[in-house]
Amino acid sequence: MTIKDIALCCGVSVSTVSRVLNNHPNVSEAAREKVLCAIREHHFVPNGSARDLVKLESDAVGLVLRGIANSFFAELIPTMDQLILDAGYTPILHQIRSDMDELDAAAKLARAKRLKGLILLGGSNDYTQEQIAALDVPFVLCTYTNSFGNLTPEQYSSVTIDDRRTGCAAAKLLLERGHRRIAILLDSIRDRSVSELRWMGFREALEEAGVPFDPALLAETVSYDMAGAYSRTKKLLADGEAFTALFAVSDAMAIAAIRALHEAGRSVPEDCSVVSVDGIALTRYTIPSLTTFVQPQKEIVCTAVQTLIDLIEGRGPNRQIVLNAVPRFGQSVRQL
Amino acid sequence: MTIKDIALCCGVSVSTVSRVLNNHPNVSEAAREKVLCAIREHHFVPNGSARDLVKLESDAVGLVLRGIANSFFAELIPTMDQLILDAGYTPILHQIRSDMDELDAAAKLARAKRLKGLILLGGSNDYTQEQIAALDVPFVLCTYTNSFGNLTPEQYSSVTIDDRRTGCAAAKLLLERGHRRIAILLDSIRDRSVSELRWMGFREALEEAGVPFDPALLAETVSYDMAGAYSRTKKLLADGEAFTALFAVSDAMAIAAIRALHEAGRSVPEDCSVVSVDGIALTRYTIPSLTTFVQPQKEIVCTAVQTLIDLIEGRGPNRQIVLNAVPRFGQSVRQL
Repeated sequence: MTIKDIALCCGVSVSTVSRVLNNHPNVSEAAREKVLCAIREHHFVPNGSARDLVKLESDAVGLVLRGIANSFFAELIPTMDQLILDAGYTPILHQIRSDMDELDAAAKLARAKRLKGLILLGGSNDYTQEQIAALDVPFVLCTYTNSFGNLTPEQYSSVTIDDRRTGCAAAKLLLERGHRRIAILLDSIRDRSVSELRWMGFREALEEAGVPFDPALLAETVSYDMAGAYSRTKKLLADGEAFTALFAVSDAMAIAAIRALHEAGRSVPEDCSVVSVDGIALTRYTIPSLTTFVQPQKEIVCTAVQTLIDLIEGRGPNRQIVLNAVPRFGQSVRQL
Repeated sequence: MTIKDIALCCGVSVSTVSRVLNNHPNVSEAAREKVLCAIREHHFVPNGSARDLVKLESDAVGLVLRGIANSFFAELIPTMDQLILDAGYTPILHQIRSDMDELDAAAKLARAKRLKGLILLGGSNDYTQEQIAALDVPFVLCTYTNSFGNLTPEQYSSVTIDDRRTGCAAAKLLLERGHRRIAILLDSIRDRSVSELRWMGFREALEEAGVPFDPALLAETVSYDMAGAYSRTKKLLADGEAFTALFAVSDAMAIAAIRALHEAGRSVPEDCSVVSVDGIALTRYTIPSLTTFVQPQKEIVCTAVQTLIDLIEGRGPNRQIVLNAVPRFGQSVRQL
């Protein structure tokens, strides 16, 4: 008795039997029942030949999420998960702390779970060819790319907004409204990640406008969390430097900064304008609602999953996709 | 050549070889490398006997998450995921819309992915014995239980706060501060879920205090989302009913309600006190910060995962665990 016999006796294709044996979701319930019945009836046991073993391979796709409690990623995960299931793969989410090495975690997960492919959610923009050699499955960098690394376009896929341009646009939005003393709240200007890129764009816009940047208005947190953003803004205020606007590199950091400003008796936007990046759902409802550059969540997720599936199924070369972040105007910015 | 021969030639136990073949994470990298080397060297192919096939069984644990964009669950998922990986299982997250049947989705996922067990995140409190018959793997109801159903304690596990008692405590907190006209913002008083339970507790506290509840102050949204909470609060305000306090059954709904109050020129807590349930991280930073009954996230996650692993590994009977929600005082409630 072989898989072919089971297929024949059920009136389905060999690949349907194979899908049932491998728990692939793209099988109708009726077909699955029929095949399972036949397998039980004939006491069929897959013969363990090399060919059958190949079919027992994994359909797992890894999602390596860096950073705990990142609201932006938290909003992406469910949709990404669903799209991967819909494509006939099994998503395996693996979360690591932001001080951990995402490539190392990804390589270990890929081995342990025999992954078909990987989506990395958040990471460093400076991968080298040596570093990615450990990843022997297709992968997509999601919400970042390789701005500071030496990978060739053939070696990686990425889906991201243009972080440098977004930092530039945020600064311009404030400059156009008359602001000159603008503070910036970020992780680190040397984090080789979105903070550094948005910082570069921010600086460029200021330079272009002939506005010197006062280093006293640089607020690094060395973490993207709300507690760090809150206490760093407190310190900025305690230092007594004057500023009429603040650019926070994430919505969550902006909300924490607004809290610190509020406690210091400074209203937003009356006493200080605030602009940020992400566009998480909640920022429509905070008081004040946020003016923020919205990352196109749905497009990011769909593009990342489609790119990975294409790579896994041999339908396309690696590609780097850049999407647009568009400002959504809330009430956190005013004209000076 | 058998598994035993591979074990002998590598100087490891048969179960280590088996773990490598099954991609179980609890194997040292050194042992894994040695075993994979020997397998390649001897062109070893598992023999496909019934005994070996058993070992090829799945190590997957399903997480069925009901409701899109629920901030409270979004905060739970990463930790839950990590604990399941640490226990040697593979978490498979599956998200469904809040209008979908979680038991049906769970049963399908269990079949398609040969799950070892299931954690259901959010669902209905009225499962019947007939309904759960479709689930033939251990499962844990997480953040809800079977208050309106007919399951016996032997038939299900659950980890939840006491929703009825929490609704009661929220009402008492407001009553003790002199509030009598208290609005309640929830999904539905007949949702057979947390809304109904918290509503019951809320009503009990009012009755006990001899305060009649005015049905005009009942605001049902028939969804737990922020948009619904926002527009329902708008309507409540437009109807012109007087109230000095509002109890929202989730933090996200409370934030949206505060936005609606704010737009109507009513400050929180000066013109209206607001109390809610969940304790998501962000509510420490909103303006005003929220007074909310904090669900013990970490304890819920650890207890749910431990309960499921114990069930899967035959180490314990089904159990129903009730944890305490404790108020965290923000600035959203004032004494009348």
